[in-house]
Order: sequence, then structure tokens, then C-alpha cells
Amino acid sequence: MAFTFQINDDVVWNHDEKLLAKAEDNTPDLIQTTVTPTAIAEITADEKSVNGFKSVVSDKNIARLEDYTLGRDEKIVLDLGDHYVGKFSVDIDSVGSPMDAPLYLRLKFAEIPAEIPAESADYDGWLSRSWIQEEFVHIDVLPMTLEMPRRYSCRYIELSVIDTSPKWKASFSNPTFVAESSVSMEQLPKPAIQDKELEAIYNISVKTLQDCMQTVFEDGPKRDRRLWIGDLRLQALANYHTFDDLALTKRCLYLFGGMTTEEGKIPANVFTEPKLTPDDTFLFDYSLFFATILFDYVEHTQDQEVLLDLYPAAKKEIDLALQQVDEQGRLVLTEDWPVFIDWSNEFDKATAGQAVMIYALKRFIQLAEKMNDVQLGDYQTICDQLESFAKTALYDEAKKQFVIEASGEVNVASQVWMVLAEVMDDETNKAIMETTVAEQFPITGIATPYMYHHVVEALFVAGLSDAAVQLMKDYWGTMIEMGADTFWEAFKPEEPNFSPYGSPIISSYCHAWSCTPAYLIKKYLA
Amino acid sequence: MAFTFQINDDVVWNHDEKLLAKAEDNTPDLIQTTVTPTAIAEITADEKSVNGFKSVVSDKNIARLEDYTLGRDEKIVLDLGDHYVGKFSVDIDSVGSPMDAPLYLRLKFAEIPAEIPAESADYDGWLSRSWIQEEFVHIDVLPMTLEMPRRYSCRYIELSVIDTSPKWKASFSNPTFVAESSVSMEQLPKPAIQDKELEAIYNISVKTLQDCMQTVFEDGPKRDRRLWIGDLRLQALANYHTFDDLALTKRCLYLFGGMTTEEGKIPANVFTEPKLTPDDTFLFDYSLFFATILFDYVEHTQDQEVLLDLYPAAKKEIDLALQQVDEQGRLVLTEDWPVFIDWSNEFDKATAGQAVMIYALKRFIQLAEKMNDVQLGDYQTICDQLESFAKTALYDEAKKQFVIEASGEVNVASQVWMVLAEVMDDETNKAIMETTVAEQFPITGIATPYMYHHVVEALFVAGLSDAAVQLMKDYWGTMIEMGADTFWEAFKPEEPNFSPYGSPIISSYCHAWSCTPAYLIKKYLA
Repeated sequence: MAFTFQINDDVVWNHDEKLLAKAEDNTPDLIQTTVTPTAIAEITADEKSVNGFKSVVSDKNIARLEDYTLGRDEKIVLDLGDHYVGKFSVDIDSVGSPMDAPLYLRLKFAEIPAEIPAESADYDGWLSRSWIQEEFVHIDVLPMTLEMPRRYSCRYIELSVIDTSPKWKASFSNPTFVAESSVSMEQLPKPAIQDKELEAIYNISVKTLQDCMQTVFEDGPKRDRRLWIGDLRLQALANYHTFDDLALTKRCLYLFGGMTTEEGKIPANVFTEPKLTPDDTFLFDYSLFFATILFDYVEHTQDQEVLLDLYPAAKKEIDLALQQVDEQGRLVLTEDWPVFIDWSNEFDKATAGQAVMIYALKRFIQLAEKMNDVQLGDYQTICDQLESFAKTALYDEAKKQFVIEASGEVNVASQVWMVLAEVMDDETNKAIMETTVAEQFPITGIATPYMYHHVVEALFVAGLSDAAVQLMKDYWGTMIEMGADTFWEAFKPEEPNFSPYGSPIISSYCHAWSCTPAYLIKKYLA
Repeated sequence: MAFTFQINDDVVWNHDEKLLAKAEDNTPDLIQTTVTPTAIAEITADEKSVNGFKSVVSDKNIARLEDYTLGRDEKIVLDLGDHYVGKFSVDIDSVGSPMDAPLYLRLKFAEIPAEIPAESADYDGWLSRSWIQEEFVHIDVLPMTLEMPRRYSCRYIELSVIDTSPKWKASFSNPTFVAESSVSMEQLPKPAIQDKELEAIYNISVKTLQDCMQTVFEDGPKRDRRLWIGDLRLQALANYHTFDDLALTKRCLYLFGGMTTEEGKIPANVFTEPKLTPDDTFLFDYSLFFATILFDYVEHTQDQEVLLDLYPAAKKEIDLALQQVDEQGRLVLTEDWPVFIDWSNEFDKATAGQAVMIYALKRFIQLAEKMNDVQLGDYQTICDQLESFAKTALYDEAKKQFVIEASGEVNVASQVWMVLAEVMDDETNKAIMETTVAEQFPITGIATPYMYHHVVEALFVAGLSDAAVQLMKDYWGTMIEMGADTFWEAFKPEEPNFSPYGSPIISSYCHAWSCTPAYLIKKYLA
């Protein structure tokens, strides 16, 4: 996530300590894996690679790293061989005359090669510069082991000597990266995927998911490094089909269930450090997803305790959302609780919002059945009204497309979410998605794997498996062609170097909401 | 020191472990004093102040520091009220929405106001940029106490927020500077100095000395932070007349006595971290000063143990130096063992070098007497030859000035050192210095308080107290007028903003060799 911000400083929060204690009880011990660089890298311009740079293995031998001493303005790039999340250390010594000045060192941690040549001074976007993975360190006495205290998300590490003195140089040895995740690749069953392209997409999806699985499901380990509910929903689905780490999912569900506003609104994201804190950002669809994540979890685990604990929060949230449905069954969105659907604000999200409401309510109703909720009938009634309104007021029979009520606008998101909400019958859904493929593909103006995921899943739901597979290959496969080790926060096929923040050093190239092919492949193609 | 460098990588060193153990036994426990900022400072242009900037007290109240929250590109300058050497800490919290990005903070530690606006990127001198007292820190979780691990030398501390996020700001409180020195102002007797200008010069001299007295006599606590023998000689003299911390002086003498080259050459400076290490820099006059520092110490303390321990090293050093005296009594300097005398290389140093040889040899001879050295007569003979050569070949009777043999060049350093070496009788010395004042003053081309010290002392030795006092006031007094809290590494009255490195952020504004007015005032005016 990111790319959106709200300030709501008058919110009154409920902290349910019983639920939050269960969240904390399920905090994982991170699994640590020691990684050593596989090569010294040369970063070179390459227009086919992401943001115009690729990495090639240098003539310099990583085994002889300590011999490549560095003085003022000299640098070297280490290649970990894959993307990892964790902490870096390196031994440093001085070579030459006695060390007559401090060592001044810059370290850059880069997920993709293009971050290495990018100048942080050139970045002037609104998103905090503090996310740039660049550190400046003075070392007064050598030799020493430099242990960087912060966690980084990277494949490439540039060591840049800003200065030594004319009398000595710095020598680096024993570079070590201790990678961290709540899960291990060793616990992952290897599926047999015949199609090599899909196999590669699957492998990079699970690597992306693994690197985002820390003490919460993070959106991106480089940035924002926190639990967003929209990412959580997709991560949880991918997780059930891969690592199946149920404790982490449970923890995240309890975090959201335990921190809601007084009236029951669930925040879009939460912080866990220095203490459990909900963010003051609210997105209508994200709030609703609490119920769908709970539904998915209970479906997968049949865990009655979790259902009993969290059903009240889901119900309160649904009730609050349903206050925005008018007598005709029309969802009326308000500015203080907008739908996200996608980063793009170039299309109208009203119909997609209506569909998400239906999608979530249908799943909540199944939970209400399990709970023998006396209001079950009421929920079913309003769900019928919502569906009925969608069918009558939002669907254009002739176009075989859902439209925006006010303007008649046709957009991809409306079709996709109405199909996912299964408002129409199977045949109509198929026709809707066939029309969408015919008239809206190739998709333009969408930069998020999040939205692309929903398009692919809608194709599968509509029975258009071939088109779904093709879109996965076109989208995630192209990221691989451009050098992805993990899937990215943002990718626009029609503008391959698009960054929502104007610089690769701020973008996240390992982002939770892009990990879903692992789920899609396992669920629809296995 | 600094402003000179040699690389001699083929030197074979003797480490005398017995002497070095005594050096380590005399390592002081540093005295720590907690200092809190007295004001928030505004740095403003002022052409009369050092490097064009002065500090004025801000309208902002330091007691309300935490209220002045800082977001992207906002900064605040803390004023400690005086120059100190030590470590900084500050409490930091976030104010506003939850902290949704790291805090990225720059800290600048400045001895003089002009260092605050100076851009480190603009510095391109040869001296290592690593000396710039500027740090960049990422903080992932607030609140926290930021404890900077390194030691700084400063009065002003700028806290610059590079970024927070649009949703919150950083709030600073409890800024604390723990000052360190081996001595305390409380152990310093307050002398009664009638002349207010001299009193101010004295006070700033002892403050300069105090801040340079750490686990060795450092040349400058900002830079180079190490023990140079030329600075030590002057610091030891000032120390005897002020704090009188004999252990630290003894420690430094043993450090040099314990680390000489195989042939007995004493290095210009030594390092004490990570282990005791001599530098590979050799200066002829600095090497000779080992004997004069030992002489001064023994004169002051009558410490027989130190004399017995260190006389052999002094003798070996003197013997080595005397190999460069030819049969006529002429010192023949060589490129691999140059005299320092002063940073300036715009004057010929041959005659001053001859004088330093005589100056040192005369003091060594007094040590040899105490030691009943059988070679005493030989040393006296060669000393006579050196003096005789100086009187006959280097002194121009008509000009009443010493000259350079080869060229006839007259310069200040030649007169000063010949007077300090007391080669001529008192009356001639007086005439030499009167001529120097008449013909060479105001001095130009000299940037070091080190050389100015020797000029002042030569004036005192020659009986010209008034001229000596005037020069002290003109030189050190002008630094005070320009805003000095401690005396500087470099100052050229005719070019007041001269920096030998091109930027104030590299210059040292608290430098040992400028602390000598405390000695001169106490020795010659008390």
C-alpha cells in the first residue's frame, strides 16, 4: 500500500485487550538464514531491464573481496544472488599507513539494480525520503565489524567509501546478510507445475510472500513495512495455498479485530511498534475485508474460537457499512470513507464499491449462519436489495457490462468486482468478462498488481482460464523478463518504468499484493 | 597539526613494552560533566565574525524545545553556551498521526557558527571529508532516546529533519551533552590578572587546553584527535602552569619513548586506538622535542624515574639528529626528515632548524649532566660548533638578523628560534627582536598560533615584554573579537577567514598549539 493518506485526528479507539493478547500470543519467532554474497556486481544500463539498469557479474572475484581496497569515492556492489529481508554486517580494516582519519562510508541497499545509480538527492516526491535505504556511517577505529542495526530489503548492497585519507584505504571482508522471515522455503511443498512460465511466476510469488511474512504480513519489507488489510487478504489466501502459517494469519486478524473505532470501523492498517496502534486511515473496501478474511480463515481452518472471538467485530463493521446503503439497495459512498479498489483515480469506483459490499456481505452471511445469528434474515434481505439494485440499475444488458449509474461509464473494475461478487449467473459473468477482454484489453491506466489480481481471478471465476493464464503471463511474466526477483508494488505494462513516486529508490519491489499468482495457480490450475 | 603528510611504509619499529606499560598505567579516567543547551541559536551573517557568521539567541525558548516540532526540511540549532568535547543524546518523539515512516535526521556539530550553514558537499580539499562532524540517522520507531555513539567537539548542534512524513512531526526534548576531559576547571587555581584583555585570553587558553586533554594531549578534539609531539610540548608547558596534570604528561612522554624506529627516530605523532601505533610521519624538529619535553618535565617534577626510563630514547634521538651536523657545525637537513617550524613553505627553514637543534641540544646536555653521561663533553663540543657556525655563518651583524646561508634570506622564524636557543647574548637578542619588530611586523604569511607562540616567547626572552603582550593581544585577542570560545588551529590576521583546507567544517577551532598564552602569561607576567 501507500500512495494514499488521510489524517483523522479526532478518532476514539477501542482496544480490546483480550483480542490483542491473542494477537501477541501468535507473534512468530523469525527464522534466520545466513546469506553471503554470491558475486561482485557491475550495474550497467540496459533499456530492457526495470528502470533501465541490469546487474552483471563483475570480473572481480567475490572470494577476493578484501583485496579490492577502497579509498575516497571508490565503491563496490555486492550481489546476494536473490532478494532477502534482514540485517547486514561486514568486517572492515584499514590498509596502508595508520588510520589517521575516520572512515566515512555510505551503504545503499537496493532491491533492483536501478536503485544503485539513482541519486537520493534527486528524489522530491511527497512520500517520505526516509524510506530510501541509504546510510552514512563514520567509523573512528578499525578493524571492526560493522553491524548495521536496521533491517533492509535488498538483493544488492553498495559499499561506497566517501573518504579514508590519502594514507590508507578500507578493506572489506566477511559480508554477511542474516535473512529473516516467519516462514522457511523448507516448509513449502514443491508443486508440479508443467508450464515453465507459470512455474517461474509461482516461484517468485512465494519468494515475494515469504519476504513479506515477518512479525505481521507486511505490505512491503522495504516500504511501508506494515500490516494493511488489503494486502493481508491476498497474503492470507496465498499463504493457505503455500506456507500455510496459520498463527501469523490469526495474529493479523486479531490485530484488526482488537483495534476498531468506537463505532466499530476497522482501520486500513495498524502499527505494532513501539506498541499496537491503529492508523487513522479508513478505506471502505478495506474495512469490509475484515469479514472476508475472517470468512477465508474459518473456511480454511474451521477454527471456532477465532470465529467466536472475531464475529462481533465483523458484524459491527458490516452493520456500519450497511448504514451507507439506501432504500433502493444503492451503496452511497462518502468522502470520509472512500473505497480504494485501485490507486488510479481516473475511473469511477461506485459500481466496484457496490460489488465489494455484496462480495463481503455474502461471505459475512455464511459466518452469520455458522453463528446462528438471529439477524441472518435481515442481512440476506439487504444483500438481495444490493444485488437487485446492481442488476437493474448498474447492468447494461446490451453492452453486457456494468456501468456507473450516474454517467454510464464502463470500466474494468466494475466488471471484475461484480463477477467476483457473483451477482449474475455463470453464463452472464462469462459474457461480461469476454466483453471486457474484447473491449478493454490490453488494460491501461492500472499500475497495481492488486487490481490485476482481481482481473485474473474474475477471469477464472467466469470460466475464462486461458485468458486468466495469459494475463498472468503478460503481467507477472513481463516483470520477470525485466529482472524481477520478487514482484513489485507497481507495474504498468504500457509504461514499464512507471514509478508512483518518481524514483525507484522509493518504490517497493517486493510487495505483498503482487504475490497472488501462487494462490491463483494453486486454486484454479492445480 | 595536520596539513602535512608522509607515507613511510618500510619503517621497522621498536615497541618497548616496559615503557608502554607505564604509558598505559597513566591513562586518565575522564571527568564527565553534563551540559544542557543554554539557548536555541539563530546563525546569521556577520562579516566581523569568524568566517562571516555569528550566533544570536533565538526568540524560541530552549525550555520549550519539545513544542518546536520539526517536519521535512525543518531545523533547529542548540547552543551549549560554550565549547565542549563529549557525547550528545536527545529524546525524540513523534507528534501527530502514527509514525508511518522512519525519521531521517541530520545532526551537525559545530565549533563555530559558520560551520552550520557550510555545505559539506562543497568541501573538496585533500584532507579527509570524514572529519566533518555531520551524521545522518534513520530512526524506525519513536519515542526513543538517540544516543550518538561518537565524540564531538562543538558548541552548536543543529538538528535537521530531512523527513518525517506528511502525517507527523518530530519533537525533541532533554538534549544532553556529556563533556569529557582528563581535567576539571575546579582544579584550576584562578590567577589574578589585572589586564582584562589578558584575562580573557588566559581563560580561553585554559578552556582550549582542557578540551584537548583527553586520554592523551590531543592536537584538536575535532581533528586530528591525536598526540602530536609539537603540540604536546606546548600543552605540557601550559599544563605545568595551570591544571598540572602530571600523569597525562608522563603518559605521553612514555608513548613516544616507547615507540621509536629501529635506529631511534621518534615519530611526529602516535595513535592509541585500537592499539598503540606510531605514525609513519617524521619531522626533524618534532623528533628533537622529545628531549626538550623530557627536560621540561624533569625540571618541573624532579622525577628521577622518568629521567632514567626515558633518557636513553632522548640520547638515541639526539645522536641520530647530530649525524646530520657536518664538520663545520652546519645542520644539513634532508628531505626524508624535514623540519616543520610552521605550515608555511614560503620561507627557508634552514636557519630555524639549526636553532632548534641548538635549543634541544642545550636542554639535552642538562639532562646528560644529571645522568653523569660520560659523553657529556662530546655533546658540549658539538653544541659549541653549532652555535659557532650560527654566529659566524648565519648572523648578519649589520642587519642584526640571522640569515639563510645560501640565499641571505631574512625571515621571522630564523630570528625567533635563534633567540629561543639563546645563541647570542641578551643584548644582541634584544637587538635582533627589535629589528624583527621594526622590519617584519606586522607579520604576514604565518597562519599558525604555533609560530606566533614562538614569536611571543622570543620577545619575552629578548626582554621585549610590551611587544610580546601587544602581539598576544593582536593575535589571540583578535580571535576573541571574532567570536572564539577556544583558540583556533589556524589564524592569519591579515586574512582573517583563511582556512588551510578551504572550508570551516574541516578546520579545528579548538587546537592545542594555540593554548599557550596561559603559559606565557603565567611564566612571564605573573
